[in-house]
Amino acid sequence: MSVSMEQIVSHAKHRGFIFPGSEIYGGLANTWDYGPLGVELKNNIKAAWWKKFVQESPYNVGLDASILMNPRTWEASGHIGNFNDPMIDCKNCKARHRADKLIEKALEEKGIEMVVDGLPFDKMEELINEHHIACPDCGSHDFTGIRQFNLMFKTFQGVTESSANEIFLRPETAQGIFVNFKNVQRTMRKKLPFGIAQIGKSFRNEITPGNFTFRTREFEQMELEFFCRPGEELKWFDYWKQFAEEWLLSLGLNKENLRLRDHSEDELSHYSNATTDFEYKFPFGWGELWGIASRTDYDLKQHMQFSGEDFNYIDPETNERYIPYCIEPSLGADRVALAFLIDAYDEEQLEDGTSRTVMHFHPAIAPFKAAVLPLSKKLSDGAREVFSTLSKHFNVDYDEAGSIGKRYRRHDEIGTPFCITYDFDSQEDHMVTVRDRDTMEQTRIPIDQLVSFLQEKISF
Amino acid sequence: MSVSMEQIVSHAKHRGFIFPGSEIYGGLANTWDYGPLGVELKNNIKAAWWKKFVQESPYNVGLDASILMNPRTWEASGHIGNFNDPMIDCKNCKARHRADKLIEKALEEKGIEMVVDGLPFDKMEELINEHHIACPDCGSHDFTGIRQFNLMFKTFQGVTESSANEIFLRPETAQGIFVNFKNVQRTMRKKLPFGIAQIGKSFRNEITPGNFTFRTREFEQMELEFFCRPGEELKWFDYWKQFAEEWLLSLGLNKENLRLRDHSEDELSHYSNATTDFEYKFPFGWGELWGIASRTDYDLKQHMQFSGEDFNYIDPETNERYIPYCIEPSLGADRVALAFLIDAYDEEQLEDGTSRTVMHFHPAIAPFKAAVLPLSKKLSDGAREVFSTLSKHFNVDYDEAGSIGKRYRRHDEIGTPFCITYDFDSQEDHMVTVRDRDTMEQTRIPIDQLVSFLQEKISF
Repeated sequence: MSVSMEQIVSHAKHRGFIFPGSEIYGGLANTWDYGPLGVELKNNIKAAWWKKFVQESPYNVGLDASILMNPRTWEASGHIGNFNDPMIDCKNCKARHRADKLIEKALEEKGIEMVVDGLPFDKMEELINEHHIACPDCGSHDFTGIRQFNLMFKTFQGVTESSANEIFLRPETAQGIFVNFKNVQRTMRKKLPFGIAQIGKSFRNEITPGNFTFRTREFEQMELEFFCRPGEELKWFDYWKQFAEEWLLSLGLNKENLRLRDHSEDELSHYSNATTDFEYKFPFGWGELWGIASRTDYDLKQHMQFSGEDFNYIDPETNERYIPYCIEPSLGADRVALAFLIDAYDEEQLEDGTSRTVMHFHPAIAPFKAAVLPLSKKLSDGAREVFSTLSKHFNVDYDEAGSIGKRYRRHDEIGTPFCITYDFDSQEDHMVTVRDRDTMEQTRIPIDQLVSFLQEKISF
Repeated sequence: MSVSMEQIVSHAKHRGFIFPGSEIYGGLANTWDYGPLGVELKNNIKAAWWKKFVQESPYNVGLDASILMNPRTWEASGHIGNFNDPMIDCKNCKARHRADKLIEKALEEKGIEMVVDGLPFDKMEELINEHHIACPDCGSHDFTGIRQFNLMFKTFQGVTESSANEIFLRPETAQGIFVNFKNVQRTMRKKLPFGIAQIGKSFRNEITPGNFTFRTREFEQMELEFFCRPGEELKWFDYWKQFAEEWLLSLGLNKENLRLRDHSEDELSHYSNATTDFEYKFPFGWGELWGIASRTDYDLKQHMQFSGEDFNYIDPETNERYIPYCIEPSLGADRVALAFLIDAYDEEQLEDGTSRTVMHFHPAIAPFKAAVLPLSKKLSDGAREVFSTLSKHFNVDYDEAGSIGKRYRRHDEIGTPFCITYDFDSQEDHMVTVRDRDTMEQTRIPIDQLVSFLQEKISF
């Protein structure tokens, strides 16, 4: 079914997935806190990514670089010079807008589809005049000129606020990988092709964050920089594109909500010879989920030039010397968690005329793998023992409040794939009733087979 | 054996555990990047903490709050008013020092042990004059007066640098928990006692960071805020103290390198009625590893006062109404990873007259659980199959370069507990030779028993 953004935000808040950040103080512009279920969901997604992209990969290793980096990094990467959004102010109501988004939205309402992002400022100003675009807040046509706004958060390290102490919160995890290329290659004795993967927070001072956790100023990335021999990059580009799609589908994402959009020639960044965006069908429309880019040797070359470090690789087989080419699959952990939340949400009409809300998470990413439900409080000793055995292996809940039916519904709503009822017979036959979230079917299973039963279900 | 800080820093760098941050640009004041082995070690430690403090706990649930919070949070917590270090400058060489540390160190050299931290500034200035304390950098006695320096990193959110947009990088994860107390309690229908656990980055603009990853401006915390009924807090304080110690010991930390130091009456913070520091014997001396504090109802009360939110809890059994008391076990992920690195390091003299460097990590936290070593490159098909089976369950290495002896040494140096040699017999008998890192003994094990063999070894 299609769910609205309001439904998802409300469900996420009331069921302990995601709370508004600093809520008791009126919030802080589109920050969000992951609640007890949200942190498990997100941790499961991150672990699932690490498992496939690092642990099982014969090519890749991990890294965890600092958020705070030497500012020369951002000169080399181009972020100090070019990481800007076009900003425009309404002179009447003082509202501040991202000019390209303002124009795109206004044109869209007139039925004109156009990519404005990346156009020169005078061209954007022309469009505003030509189409009589008004301030969406007050309707005025009186705008300032368009100006550059750098998206990096600035802070000061050390005890004085001088420009010598000015540093930035990283706007992407990728550069922490590039500057460590040689350290990793040497200490891990890696031969090409190989990749370096990283999960971590990044920060962008977006002019207009929004759409729940889709665009936030603080966000978490899961990035891979995969290095290969020049000339082989398009083969590896295809490899990682397919690998990424399989990862999403193997965790249960609906294929019809996913589309792959190749960048056209004139949309490509100047250093890229191929880029594909994975887009997900969010309630507000198709939005970028995973960007996969073939970035040539641009990044390593930039850092060579700015640092004087030699990033040439000497091919042990051919003795050739070259700067590796790089493929970058870059995924937002918050965005993909949001996609899985939306994708899992369903409201079902049941045969008995009632309805239920259910989250159809793949068991691998479900916050709780199972809930242990004693049929009566008198059975808590035995049920507690089942909980204690299972919790050594999985995150499971113990729930003894309310009727079994109510407890089933509660766990449907948070996506617990299996409810395990411990009843009076369980004390005698050492078996429990396992109820499947999706089929609602019940099976009797020996307690000592529960661990392997769940282990099989969560594998992917 | 006792290892020096220089040995650990060098070993960590050259074996891929921890690299200097932004190294190719000359670094950035005591930032560090976790390399491929370091990120696995730290992830294992975080997972081991989460397993015992959240997953297996019948009391606790997790949370992942934003780093960026509404600034009112830091007014309520006292960080805007009181989170300061005493700063003093040398007028001669312009070096900047933390006054309390400067005095403590100078007195220590004279054989006087004294806690200066927390003394009034005029008392500190008296001590400097009385003991003729000199600038450690240039020897001058010409200091400025002592001034307050707030340790929070400041940045600006949104597009203008006005004080209205001033926000801070959180200096601790704890406050993200307190402001969400009610959201968590309500959505998870928690009854007291219960706890909320969080792992995440915090930032403190330390005047003098140092000692490798012991004190860094960017660091990761593992915090639990455990809420209970007033009057029961000291019982729970003892419970978590013991729980924390058992956690460290169960992961193999040497008990003789650990000491528990209770805060004396006049050392206690004004809101605390009991605090114990777990200290580890670092190469530079005893240093705080884990602080466990009974914080009464101070934090919730502060946030009630500043937000107007009601944090009273109505006891479902007695119908009493009270603000919960709180126990806070707070552990630095980087510090405890450093302690485990130091604790594991050994240089052993072997019977044959040679020596080896070996990291005796508990298998649960070792970066690689095993290394698969084909005896000959001709055996790579079979060995690759073993790698592929094991890597579905564990982080394992595949290593085919050099003699088996060399490969054993290499994995001793990074703490891989088991080396699995696939030889010509393996093709026939489907068995492999498993060599134990610590005893160096070799056992022949059927390939299809490897997963359960390793699973048992990593359990803790």
